[in-house]
Amino acid sequence: MRRYLILPLLIALFSLAGCAATLPQRGTGDLGVVIERATGSIQVVGTTNRTRLGQITGLGDLSHASVNYSRDERYAYVFGRDGGLTKVDLLEMRIVKRVIQSGNSIGGAISQDGRFVAASNYTPGGVRIFNAETLDLVADIPSADRAGKSSKVVGLVDAPGNRFVFSLFEAGEIWVADMSAPSGLAVTKFEHIGKDPYDAMITADGRYYLAGLFGEDGLALLDMWNMEAGVKRVLNGYGKGEQQLPVYKMPHLEGWAATGNELLVPAVGRHEVLVIGMNNWKEVGRIPVHGQPVFVVARPDNRQVWVNFALPHNDTVQVIDVPSRTIIKTLKPGKAVLHMEFTPRGEQVWISVRDEDRVEVYDTGTFAKIKELPASKPSGIFFTPRAHRTGL
Amino acid sequence: MRRYLILPLLIALFSLAGCAATLPQRGTGDLGVVIERATGSIQVVGTTNRTRLGQITGLGDLSHASVNYSRDERYAYVFGRDGGLTKVDLLEMRIVKRVIQSGNSIGGAISQDGRFVAASNYTPGGVRIFNAETLDLVADIPSADRAGKSSKVVGLVDAPGNRFVFSLFEAGEIWVADMSAPSGLAVTKFEHIGKDPYDAMITADGRYYLAGLFGEDGLALLDMWNMEAGVKRVLNGYGKGEQQLPVYKMPHLEGWAATGNELLVPAVGRHEVLVIGMNNWKEVGRIPVHGQPVFVVARPDNRQVWVNFALPHNDTVQVIDVPSRTIIKTLKPGKAVLHMEFTPRGEQVWISVRDEDRVEVYDTGTFAKIKELPASKPSGIFFTPRAHRTGL
Repeated sequence: MRRYLILPLLIALFSLAGCAATLPQRGTGDLGVVIERATGSIQVVGTTNRTRLGQITGLGDLSHASVNYSRDERYAYVFGRDGGLTKVDLLEMRIVKRVIQSGNSIGGAISQDGRFVAASNYTPGGVRIFNAETLDLVADIPSADRAGKSSKVVGLVDAPGNRFVFSLFEAGEIWVADMSAPSGLAVTKFEHIGKDPYDAMITADGRYYLAGLFGEDGLALLDMWNMEAGVKRVLNGYGKGEQQLPVYKMPHLEGWAATGNELLVPAVGRHEVLVIGMNNWKEVGRIPVHGQPVFVVARPDNRQVWVNFALPHNDTVQVIDVPSRTIIKTLKPGKAVLHMEFTPRGEQVWISVRDEDRVEVYDTGTFAKIKELPASKPSGIFFTPRAHRTGL
Repeated sequence: MRRYLILPLLIALFSLAGCAATLPQRGTGDLGVVIERATGSIQVVGTTNRTRLGQITGLGDLSHASVNYSRDERYAYVFGRDGGLTKVDLLEMRIVKRVIQSGNSIGGAISQDGRFVAASNYTPGGVRIFNAETLDLVADIPSADRAGKSSKVVGLVDAPGNRFVFSLFEAGEIWVADMSAPSGLAVTKFEHIGKDPYDAMITADGRYYLAGLFGEDGLALLDMWNMEAGVKRVLNGYGKGEQQLPVYKMPHLEGWAATGNELLVPAVGRHEVLVIGMNNWKEVGRIPVHGQPVFVVARPDNRQVWVNFALPHNDTVQVIDVPSRTIIKTLKPGKAVLHMEFTPRGEQVWISVRDEDRVEVYDTGTFAKIKELPASKPSGIFFTPRAHRTGL
């Protein structure tokens, strides 16, 4: 009789005490996520050994997904096209919580203090702000203009002072939501900033918020250090007026490269990268490139800028040497290069090649391909050190 | 008889399977280390909840200690005055390995790819480079000049391209050790750079290496993007010639604040912070402050610069508003303010107040003190996001 008791007891003890023993301790500073857009899954990767650590499924429609990270770099917040906001635990490789927060979402951001996660929505518009711990709704900001008409919200970023900044497409407005206000939320609105802002970016220091205008030339600029001055129009030659070729893909503003005093930006519809002086916001140069640029991304040391392209040139990546403004390398990773992500100190770059079903890793010093990793229709690549940066 | 077998068996199983169950999973992006200089111990802290997570003892003489982090933000490399290099596991809260690598050490650095840890030494001089995983010696670079005389090594930093840069005090030289060379190590030497380089810093992009000269005026500047141009002398009015008051403490160059186009640096021996234009390396302004500045540190968004002071003003911290170059806040944390460390997105600053045996945490937006943490004679504070930065 006693013998029969021992075994179930042991099994019970093992399952109680042994559960955590199967999961070794590991740091989270070298982790990342690769979006697998066709299957609604993400890969968790490690950049130290350039390995795939696991896959998490069930994240819905990831055809236009973005990722933010908790300040401890343990949790990823994945924003999907279907309005889904999914909190993923990168250590336990599981979904912690998933909410469908709208009908159609385009992007997200996490507050400076890490307490709030914000999602910007196309349908029904507006920004929703969630508790980063629980995903409980904290604030709902409808994007209705003075006439009561709702706008799609684009270009959502975080800014210092626990603020979120975003643009209203139809209304042509820029709003700043301050989560450090005594009431818990204060919204400052800038109207008539220009026609159809379609995307925006903020400089790494969190100072300059720039919105691209689809409906007219130029960019809308808000200096976050001097909000009283209002939104100004800059770079009036930029945008619609530049079009000499059909535009195959509107460039992402989040991929603009700020290299000290200059901003390198994709020319809309042209085979050029523009060099903008940040002291006067005027064009100071043009760099001919292989196709219509999509992402123009600076290596963290700002010495190189890597560029990918729209169809039919999306099999190519070019590397610009910043001081000489010349192309120093042309790579052909394969069909449909969608995204590039640098390791935080810039020694590697990871490139997603969607139609080849793989991610490639390059040494940015020698340009040697150092690894290929299989992935199912990979698009965005996001490494955890983004947790420590503003505006990503 | 059977009964007597069960208990030991259970205990054995518990100790096998249960060990890891006591250690919950956690991210490492919000961790940090506080040096407790008098007791040779470190505190491990968490910045999300502003808590002390543990203490690790037995690290030797930490009277002048510095810390680097592994690229996964799990391990801290602690360099002590006694030549000890200790690798600490922040998750398991234990010393992984400790080597006494020299008689007297002053600083360390970790390579861009995270594979190598370097220590610079006073006695017997030279730089030793270790495998970051095992702490096995990989390279030993004696600091002998052409005449065979050994120098103290100071101002050791990492630079892009898996390089280490450092200065030889007695010889007056700057050396660059390239760990990506085909042979595994190539050293480039710059001689006659000036008299008695006592410390150095590298800008956050890894481009400009600047060494302070104790024996003469000015700074030695090496442009890492154009090493062929050699080392130049800049800011000739800076240093010895500035002295109008006795110098109570030589300022740390690692604490210099680069705010876009300008560098804010402590004036040696004067109650001033100098503003240096980085386009021409000339002084463009002076900001009067409360005492002789020691650390002049930019908040990560570069809008504020925080300054602490040498005796007899070391109970004070002042905050400079960068755009207006004015003091906007004076704080009195207490006796012997030794160090300040910002959280990576700048919402908090942690300040060590040695003679009050505490660390204070301030909100950098409101300047409110939000927490006090007890610590035994705290000096340096180092947060894990340093793992992702160049030159720290």
